[in-house]
Amino acid sequence: MTREECAALDVRDPLARLRASFILPDGVIYLDGNSLGALPRATSTRVREVIEQEWGGGLIRSWNDAHWIEAPRRVGAKIAKLVGALPHEVVCADSTSINLFKVLATALRLQAARPQVSMRERRLILSERSNFPTDLYVAQGLADLLGNRYELKLVDFGAVIGAIDDSVAVVMLTHVNYRSGAKHSVSSVTYRAHQAGALMVWDLAHSTGAVPIDLNDARADFAVGCGYKYLNGGPGAPAFLYVADRHLKAITEEPFAQPLSGWMGHRAPFEFAPGYEPARTIDRFTVGTPSVLALAALECGVDTVLAAGVDALRAKSVQLTELFLRLVDERCTGFELHTITPRDAAYRGSQVCLTHPHAWPVMQALISRGVIGDYRDNGDAPGILRFGFAPLYVRFVDVWDAVELLRETLAGESWRAPEHQERKAVT
Amino acid sequence: MTREECAALDVRDPLARLRASFILPDGVIYLDGNSLGALPRATSTRVREVIEQEWGGGLIRSWNDAHWIEAPRRVGAKIAKLVGALPHEVVCADSTSINLFKVLATALRLQAARPQVSMRERRLILSERSNFPTDLYVAQGLADLLGNRYELKLVDFGAVIGAIDDSVAVVMLTHVNYRSGAKHSVSSVTYRAHQAGALMVWDLAHSTGAVPIDLNDARADFAVGCGYKYLNGGPGAPAFLYVADRHLKAITEEPFAQPLSGWMGHRAPFEFAPGYEPARTIDRFTVGTPSVLALAALECGVDTVLAAGVDALRAKSVQLTELFLRLVDERCTGFELHTITPRDAAYRGSQVCLTHPHAWPVMQALISRGVIGDYRDNGDAPGILRFGFAPLYVRFVDVWDAVELLRETLAGESWRAPEHQERKAVT
Repeated sequence: MTREECAALDVRDPLARLRASFILPDGVIYLDGNSLGALPRATSTRVREVIEQEWGGGLIRSWNDAHWIEAPRRVGAKIAKLVGALPHEVVCADSTSINLFKVLATALRLQAARPQVSMRERRLILSERSNFPTDLYVAQGLADLLGNRYELKLVDFGAVIGAIDDSVAVVMLTHVNYRSGAKHSVSSVTYRAHQAGALMVWDLAHSTGAVPIDLNDARADFAVGCGYKYLNGGPGAPAFLYVADRHLKAITEEPFAQPLSGWMGHRAPFEFAPGYEPARTIDRFTVGTPSVLALAALECGVDTVLAAGVDALRAKSVQLTELFLRLVDERCTGFELHTITPRDAAYRGSQVCLTHPHAWPVMQALISRGVIGDYRDNGDAPGILRFGFAPLYVRFVDVWDAVELLRETLAGESWRAPEHQERKAVT
Repeated sequence: MTREECAALDVRDPLARLRASFILPDGVIYLDGNSLGALPRATSTRVREVIEQEWGGGLIRSWNDAHWIEAPRRVGAKIAKLVGALPHEVVCADSTSINLFKVLATALRLQAARPQVSMRERRLILSERSNFPTDLYVAQGLADLLGNRYELKLVDFGAVIGAIDDSVAVVMLTHVNYRSGAKHSVSSVTYRAHQAGALMVWDLAHSTGAVPIDLNDARADFAVGCGYKYLNGGPGAPAFLYVADRHLKAITEEPFAQPLSGWMGHRAPFEFAPGYEPARTIDRFTVGTPSVLALAALECGVDTVLAAGVDALRAKSVQLTELFLRLVDERCTGFELHTITPRDAAYRGSQVCLTHPHAWPVMQALISRGVIGDYRDNGDAPGILRFGFAPLYVRFVDVWDAVELLRETLAGESWRAPEHQERKAVT
């Protein structure tokens, strides 16, 4: 494999033209779109329009005239196309963490009201030990609030399916693991959960926009996801959540099935009634007034993904990660790198993770050479060099160049420099 | 009182020069800054810089290099100056509704752990029947989640103080009533709550930035507030919350005293540990990743208020509302208007509310003439014409002109036109 062959892949790439939809800094190979997506070319102009014309010119009238009030559902319906959901099953709101609190609470409530598959009490929220920590923290906080009627049980990635039994109320998993890049099968795990009488909550933060997802086909119950990774919605973009239509129907009579009962979730917020009556729609999963500026930026980002289509993105993502793995194998031997991402593309998302005994300073040195990935702590084991491949704007030559710069970094001594040892607030 | 005299007041107004810090549309008198603050001149440029330079150019590095990670505390510390709090007692996060859930849950937890003032079980969350509905909804949802150990008791505005007794766990009130403009005394109510052994939660949404508040002086326990009204943070701006330093210290050993336990509230989020250990600071009241764009806009808005100072703003606000009340009395007699806002400035915020039997079409007709206030439903009673006076950008001549246009509207028949009868999604 040569750099010329990589350049030839770019020439043949049907998504290549979409790179121009982004503004990317010169001299940077950006392999961290799995943490913060790049800036779409349309975003700055659109946000400026929202600020100057809609807010500045329209003022309060823009809630109606510029359709601000519809933005959470409008952007939600667009995201629905990316995750195999119906338009009315998805809404944008709040953060991934808060959305997880909502859907997990609702799932536990629904489960408690169901005729049990067995007589055994379902006390467990089952998750994965290496799940993204906020998911675990949210479940711990909710369990505590509910008087520890529920308990969070954590197992290893590969042990999840085997651990689902009739003591499990809800299985809560992240589709693609943030630390390893390993991918669960949404359909298989959901099937097994349902077989055991459990409900299934998916966190799609590390897959939406890069990996095809069909929530309806899998009969998934609930899901949440993130707007600022592969959806390119900007730093801290609003998150989204999904509730299966059948559950929306099932909870109509329970006013607090979703317990964060804010005014935006009311049946008629502008009646200003003192008693909460939830909307009969996905709106009941919204809470307070959403950030219109942040939603406008998110919509621009989602549009970039819709323009490509998830299947085409996945095809390129697999090619990019295959190429990276192959080039690392070929060109970075003898540097104590160890690949922890599954080598079979069917079992990974759009990122590749390598461990190294000096992962932190190596990543800092690599960033200083213009290849931006990130570092993830790995407990007592060697730290992780994490590389995300956002197929909308990462080129095959970028992969080649990134591996060359990684090789040079590892072969040299620059990562030993003092400035690369110093830890930063955000890793 | 003549228009010339109003113009003379503007000439002498020490805040007059600050109107130039805002971009206001021509031909509009904006009396709805209590619902959505106007656009500060600095905002568009600053947000553009965040988007193009910090996000587009800096990408993921800006969490450290552009200090994004500090924004919730930095903007919180600025707001602290407006509400009489210490810098480390305030943080920006989420929506007012969600922040209320957090602080109310924490207050109940703290109260349950305290040596009781009497042996009687404290089951009540006491609030006001005409409190902003989302506050009531949030309390109802939390009470339901806690198995109805607590009950929300609602009384009339004037009956609150008398209803505080040793059955009350937490008193939860909005400082300035959204519907009437009536203002509680933060110090008196907090004093009475403490005397009865209750904790005090204030919602400062309708006062922060226009009415002086001294949370520390009043020994207030918890508070929340809104970024998009008098703080001019933009539509759906992030909200803020306040926790008294003594309570931050008291809850250190309880990991889930604040139950929305997301990763941003962790002691060390980037250690990615599977178990939640809260920060020992106000950070534990943050949850997920905040919107950086929305925080940047909020900071510009807060800066406009800091530039004026709350005492100067209050002085002008009192003058503006006095003038409006006086001119309505003088010039709008015989039109079935009824003032429901207290005539004594000490008992009102920065808005004036008038009822009218045809309040909805009258407000629509008035808006079509360029005076933007809003309408609030009032149950079976005549609806409310609501006028907010944001002293940063409302002039004395605006008050004169608004009353004249209100008089013309009421005197004419234009409000009877069919287009003014039609209800909109957002009122």
